[in-house]
Amino acid sequence: MTERLSEETRDTLLDPLLKTGWEVTQGRDAIQKTFQFNNFVDAFGWMTRVAIWAEKWDHHPEWSNVYKTVEVTLTTHDVDGLSPLDIKLARKMDGLAG
Amino acid sequence: MTERLSEETRDTLLDPLLKTGWEVTQGRDAIQKTFQFNNFVDAFGWMTRVAIWAEKWDHHPEWSNVYKTVEVTLTTHDVDGLSPLDIKLARKMDGLAG
Repeated sequence: MTERLSEETRDTLLDPLLKTGWEVTQGRDAIQKTFQFNNFVDAFGWMTRVAIWAEKWDHHPEWSNVYKTVEVTLTTHDVDGLSPLDIKLARKMDGLAG
Repeated sequence: MTERLSEETRDTLLDPLLKTGWEVTQGRDAIQKTFQFNNFVDAFGWMTRVAIWAEKWDHHPEWSNVYKTVEVTLTTHDVDGLSPLDIKLARKMDGLAG
């Protein structure tokens, strides 16, 4: 079962993500990042690859897209906050965008 | 070249869309609609089909997705308002969701 991140685990896991552009969302136990691509095909192509992983892991992002920009928020509704699944999906998103 | 819809054309073209759930956006010359699907695969599958048409027509939506819900806003940045391209893409979106 997914559990909400403990305070100690949280900092250890979040620290590397904060260095790649993720931010803790204001007023919500969530993380967010804006991804910029060269054009719509690159942006939506990345979303498609992420979507397949998200479905495979049964953990889906909140995200919006305007042309070459994708804004993502990750949180785990079942635990009302951040869980290891958010860390895993954030890393995958960075990897697929790299 | 794309032109902003004239007042008369606008009503004639928007009327059928307003009957399928599109709404005129408050404070902005744009239209918006919330699409609901059965699950993430259906929602993102629809987005993928829309994305290919959007790229083909070089006219892209502003949209956000949370699991099985997709919120769409259409406007034409080049004319700072609604153009025939928005009507065309709105109809296509309805058709692909039908």
